[in-house]
Amino acid sequence: MTEPLAAGAVIGILGGGQLGRMLSVAASRLGFRTHIYEPGANPPAGHVADRVVTAAYDDIEALLSFGQGVDVITYEFENVPTEALDVLQSVAPILPNREALRVSQDRITEKDFLTGIGLSVAPYAAVDDAASLAEAIEAVGTPSILKSRRFGYDGKGQARIASPDDAPAALAELAGAPAVLEGFISFTSEISVIAARDAASNVVGFDPGENLHVDGMLRTTTVPASISNELRQSAVSIASQIVAELDYVGVLAVELFVTADGLLVNEIAPRVHNSGHWTQNGCAVDQFEQHIRAITGLPLGDGGRHSDVTMKNLIGDDMERLSELLADPRASLHLYGKADTKDGRKMGHVNYVR
Amino acid sequence: MTEPLAAGAVIGILGGGQLGRMLSVAASRLGFRTHIYEPGANPPAGHVADRVVTAAYDDIEALLSFGQGVDVITYEFENVPTEALDVLQSVAPILPNREALRVSQDRITEKDFLTGIGLSVAPYAAVDDAASLAEAIEAVGTPSILKSRRFGYDGKGQARIASPDDAPAALAELAGAPAVLEGFISFTSEISVIAARDAASNVVGFDPGENLHVDGMLRTTTVPASISNELRQSAVSIASQIVAELDYVGVLAVELFVTADGLLVNEIAPRVHNSGHWTQNGCAVDQFEQHIRAITGLPLGDGGRHSDVTMKNLIGDDMERLSELLADPRASLHLYGKADTKDGRKMGHVNYVR
Repeated sequence: MTEPLAAGAVIGILGGGQLGRMLSVAASRLGFRTHIYEPGANPPAGHVADRVVTAAYDDIEALLSFGQGVDVITYEFENVPTEALDVLQSVAPILPNREALRVSQDRITEKDFLTGIGLSVAPYAAVDDAASLAEAIEAVGTPSILKSRRFGYDGKGQARIASPDDAPAALAELAGAPAVLEGFISFTSEISVIAARDAASNVVGFDPGENLHVDGMLRTTTVPASISNELRQSAVSIASQIVAELDYVGVLAVELFVTADGLLVNEIAPRVHNSGHWTQNGCAVDQFEQHIRAITGLPLGDGGRHSDVTMKNLIGDDMERLSELLADPRASLHLYGKADTKDGRKMGHVNYVR
Repeated sequence: MTEPLAAGAVIGILGGGQLGRMLSVAASRLGFRTHIYEPGANPPAGHVADRVVTAAYDDIEALLSFGQGVDVITYEFENVPTEALDVLQSVAPILPNREALRVSQDRITEKDFLTGIGLSVAPYAAVDDAASLAEAIEAVGTPSILKSRRFGYDGKGQARIASPDDAPAALAELAGAPAVLEGFISFTSEISVIAARDAASNVVGFDPGENLHVDGMLRTTTVPASISNELRQSAVSIASQIVAELDYVGVLAVELFVTADGLLVNEIAPRVHNSGHWTQNGCAVDQFEQHIRAITGLPLGDGGRHSDVTMKNLIGDDMERLSELLADPRASLHLYGKADTKDGRKMGHVNYVR
């Protein structure tokens, strides 16, 4: 893409969850329309999109029709099936590129990529069966954590191994899925960096946020993170290196462990990310608009932070506290319009501007 | 309405222009869905709404069906025909209430209301024909301005009268529409106040903005306005009085002239207003969210201003300067997704955070 997309152009978004919803709103601010492709009915993004296609990822006809109606395609999650991308790519450009998806869809591929470009990650080893798990435990040690190589999110598809005795139970938990054993890291904090890169190779990083996870789910992100200026710069530099190596166009998130020995990359996500929601109330241009600018060829915005923010996820029955949350004048509420409140489901978030 | 609407409820919006579009986005942040009712095809608000009804305001069946599918009805412009409101009111609550619409739909009724509650306005007199215009010129003096009593906006339906000789031409310009002659005011500046009132009678006013009009159209709004603290408080107090007198629920805009003798009310608008767009980048809760909170029974947000802002409207071929505008890191762009760029058409706005 050499010329920016004109106002009125249509952005196709694969996935209709909250990230697609907030991408759609950002696209509207820039004068674009959005079409959502989502297998599930009544997706959150559909409430703020110009069109919603409800169809499966193996519905070739629906994919082609969707692709022909849009000017560029992006996605809100990394597990889009390769076959669907093959079909879509024949009719419209897909950004970020498929290499980023390929790398991030598989934890082993991702760790091999990261170590291959000189970045540090926790010790890891591939696990396919009891024998390879035993070898992996030998190599990585315990405590460690067994994770499915693909399709994991929010702590799902994971089992902790405190001692070699836990191996059989962990393997059963993974139910035969190809896996990776990761060594436990002794970290002082978890941070993440959201970086945007455009087609002209400009990179703009947001300030690192400090994340608090509970039961594998992100609960809060706070900016600024309580880290040294040196680590802050190092984190942004790692994210910049990753997007450059992937020839990436769009927004990418990097989760990092802060350890006594410096920063270790935990994982990357080739998309806007929950830990970047604070940018909606902390920056003039948020991660969603930054992503839309990147994939439509518009200049990236300023990533500067005008306010300190703490973002809190609203999970499950946090929804019962809405009136209380809204009564706090510092609270900026962002709900996702999900039809049903369920335990462990992300229903929205609140940005507390400080 | 005693209980707030639950997340997932549907807000019906009459009118599908940019104000409806930005109301729809604000509603989505609070977890609501929106249905747009708009006679014109492909309305800007439709791109970010859950549903769009394309039908005329005299289509009883479409109105009833629309009203039955929503939990509350609001509007983005004050010229909704009374007959349409009669139909809608039979199936869903309408907020702000009809009294506010009745008052603001007719310039004479509005001025009578304002003076009736003790507020100052420019000298005015009703004009129906050549004879009453001659009397009005006698009473109000020249220079003055002849405006249609109803359906005027952005300087349309207006004719200036520099001297009594201009009377016939002005009358011809109005083409027989009932009119009002307004005396010219010698003012130092034009300001406006956006105020929100909820059903429990709480009122939150935003900081007054200073407006610059060119050819009858708003070009820029700047906050803070360059007025004394006393005038600032007086302006907010006038807006508070108006919403209280109207038993108003929602956001209302008051345009005021700053004169040597104090503040004169120019006009009111029973809706979110162009001169309040700066709140999107200057406040934690903007005018659109404040309106949605008010009509859904949620607590009003803090109206405090965290940043100074200058809002510039993008009109007609300002759209050709988009790349340049986007390259300014202080610029937050808001486009309306209008299909065609026309001279004098508001296409978007930019908030410059200072």
